[in-house]
Amino acid sequence: MTTRVLTGITPSGTPHLGNYVGAIRPAIAASRTQGIESFFFLADLHSLIKAQDPVRTQRSTLEIAASWLACGLDPDKVWFYRQSDIPETTELTWYLTVVAGKGILNRAHAYKAAVDKNREEGVDDDAGISAGLFMYPVLMAADILIFNANKVPVGRDQIQHIEMARDFAQRFNHIYGKDHFALPEAAIDEQVATLAGLDGRKMSKSYNNTIPLFAPREELRKLVFSILTDSRAPGEPKDTEGSALFQMYQAFATPEQSAAFARAFADGIGWGEAKQQLFERIDAELSPLRERYNALMAEPERIEALLRRRGQELRERFAIPLLKELRYAVGLRDLAAAGDTPRATAAAKAALPQFKQYREADGRFHFKLLDGEGRLLIQSEGFDSPRDAGQLVAALKQAEHGDALQSESFKLEAEVEQVLAALAALRE
Amino acid sequence: MTTRVLTGITPSGTPHLGNYVGAIRPAIAASRTQGIESFFFLADLHSLIKAQDPVRTQRSTLEIAASWLACGLDPDKVWFYRQSDIPETTELTWYLTVVAGKGILNRAHAYKAAVDKNREEGVDDDAGISAGLFMYPVLMAADILIFNANKVPVGRDQIQHIEMARDFAQRFNHIYGKDHFALPEAAIDEQVATLAGLDGRKMSKSYNNTIPLFAPREELRKLVFSILTDSRAPGEPKDTEGSALFQMYQAFATPEQSAAFARAFADGIGWGEAKQQLFERIDAELSPLRERYNALMAEPERIEALLRRRGQELRERFAIPLLKELRYAVGLRDLAAAGDTPRATAAAKAALPQFKQYREADGRFHFKLLDGEGRLLIQSEGFDSPRDAGQLVAALKQAEHGDALQSESFKLEAEVEQVLAALAALRE
Repeated sequence: MTTRVLTGITPSGTPHLGNYVGAIRPAIAASRTQGIESFFFLADLHSLIKAQDPVRTQRSTLEIAASWLACGLDPDKVWFYRQSDIPETTELTWYLTVVAGKGILNRAHAYKAAVDKNREEGVDDDAGISAGLFMYPVLMAADILIFNANKVPVGRDQIQHIEMARDFAQRFNHIYGKDHFALPEAAIDEQVATLAGLDGRKMSKSYNNTIPLFAPREELRKLVFSILTDSRAPGEPKDTEGSALFQMYQAFATPEQSAAFARAFADGIGWGEAKQQLFERIDAELSPLRERYNALMAEPERIEALLRRRGQELRERFAIPLLKELRYAVGLRDLAAAGDTPRATAAAKAALPQFKQYREADGRFHFKLLDGEGRLLIQSEGFDSPRDAGQLVAALKQAEHGDALQSESFKLEAEVEQVLAALAALRE
Repeated sequence: MTTRVLTGITPSGTPHLGNYVGAIRPAIAASRTQGIESFFFLADLHSLIKAQDPVRTQRSTLEIAASWLACGLDPDKVWFYRQSDIPETTELTWYLTVVAGKGILNRAHAYKAAVDKNREEGVDDDAGISAGLFMYPVLMAADILIFNANKVPVGRDQIQHIEMARDFAQRFNHIYGKDHFALPEAAIDEQVATLAGLDGRKMSKSYNNTIPLFAPREELRKLVFSILTDSRAPGEPKDTEGSALFQMYQAFATPEQSAAFARAFADGIGWGEAKQQLFERIDAELSPLRERYNALMAEPERIEALLRRRGQELRERFAIPLLKELRYAVGLRDLAAAGDTPRATAAAKAALPQFKQYREADGRFHFKLLDGEGRLLIQSEGFDSPRDAGQLVAALKQAEHGDALQSESFKLEAEVEQVLAALAALRE
């Protein structure tokens, strides 16, 4: 059986080399594994929690979509789509919301971190926290469950969200009595490649030490040349250990190329020459991607059309049928659907009387006998246990004489003859 | 201008006389007021918070829909629909969720009451509380805002929800810069008619003292005869004050009829006779309704078709266009939409070189000159003020000779001829 692997991509900012090496490149490589059905989505509904600048949201979505496609994501082999193009996701979010325990959401890391920050600052626990941040795990569960994804590659900090999605799925399955949802599992890659930035710290927007993935060649060259190095002169041996420059080279080179570069370090290559080699190495890998990226960015209507088409296919193939099933499961049903409505029941059993057992608000168990048109024939008193009521019903079903209808536990609401006739009809 | 009045109906249980007198009858009467556009919806998504029995959910929805129609709601004059038939509501719920303050939801009465109950019982604050209960006010806001309802008739305990809907609407309008939403107002009816039940307490399911609205005539008679009365014998004058029986009569009678009934009380009418009159009075009003109800219940497919048709009309007329507007507002836009994307800009200026002025992370101001294909021609150094950079750009734009390109403040990244040609193209 194919394993469904789902990856969410937050469309914010412009990707840099660190994103490429640590996330984009390995995820695309993994999507080519046999026996895998890959889902990649642009999490634009999520992005609204943080980004409330519409022009930026649109631009980021385009840039990130173009980036992944340029890096080799094959939209005919994987499902590549935009979260907001699957409106069934928000409907599913509600069905999960009603089964999700609020207490579980209180414990979500991102929410707790925001609360802790407020406490440090001595303000209200929830000051400035949106319901969006709080409900994020439920939307994420919907993203996963709507396609019944089996594996969700996440960082350690996101494992909890997958556990929550499992929890909500289990609750739903339990309450509505069927395995509507597969239980997703977190797939943790323990060896996430990180890349050092210009200053040697991890490459990250927050350190302002990034190299944009699709910087034009000249800009790339300049940035590579601005990588911090030590002051060893040409001719002096250089350390590869702890060298951001060397590490970056490794990320774009074969082991053989890296080994040769290490030898050059030992042989005292000058930093300028080393940077030139690094630049050429990166550019050799990125320049065809950059070309594709620029071509894609020049025709955003193609990306728009692709995302819409795939979104529509996903809706038709998965989301719409699933939601139809779920609506039925929770009771949002066609009022005229056969077998579900009193009318259908009545029609099927038109001529037949029936016993109804039920529990009243006071907690006691009752039964009644109705004739084929729903008129009351027998009304019981309340019983402490449903078994007592059941036994009496069983006895009544055998009743063939009026004296079997004498009891303090129920009242006849019609003539004895009528009741006996109904019981006889029921036996037949 | 028409005022839009929106009424939510929770499809749970079977309506009783108290619901009819206190809610259904007055709401239907109000819907006939001139200058009002009425929206009545079956809040089936809400009902899932409490009712997780699908068969009951379906059955209640049908019964409640049939009840309101039988009582005279005119589906060609009001919008009568099912909440779940407007899937845009859950999408809007998400857009409101991201702007809603979590702290506001903490203060919702229903949620707080559940927390208080948990505290009394010495368990966790949120024990057994679903995220659905917590998020209920956001879904309710979406119900109101999706049709830009102006007035929402509610009981005092619900005013807070309308205030929250206003708050979310205001935040959204504020963040996304336009009056996307009208601000709804609560319409409080101070004189809600209540009806006493069989035992003299307020008629309520929780007291188990109700008379079902559409009880068959015989059952109605029996129930009316079971109303608790005092032990005064026929001939003794009876009190109308505090008499559940008299009060119920009033609810179904003209003032003249009530006055005559009061005189009969004073004249010592026997309880049996009084009950017979009350029964006849109620039955006179309800029997045509009951007939319609039974006819409707016998043809659930007509109700289903009606609800679907109206839901679809509402979607096309209000929900779909509104959501289209909102998606654009938050930035979920067509990636190829003119004027919004870099491509549109690029296309318009395809052949032209351009100067770009920008600020680097170090806070200094730079500019560069790119040719029509984005290749770097000139790269400036950093300036302390944008004015300095701007002045130099202005001077460069006039440059017609190579010597104007000699400067320590910028570097040529291409041949002098190329740069001069680009500047010339720009001037034209």
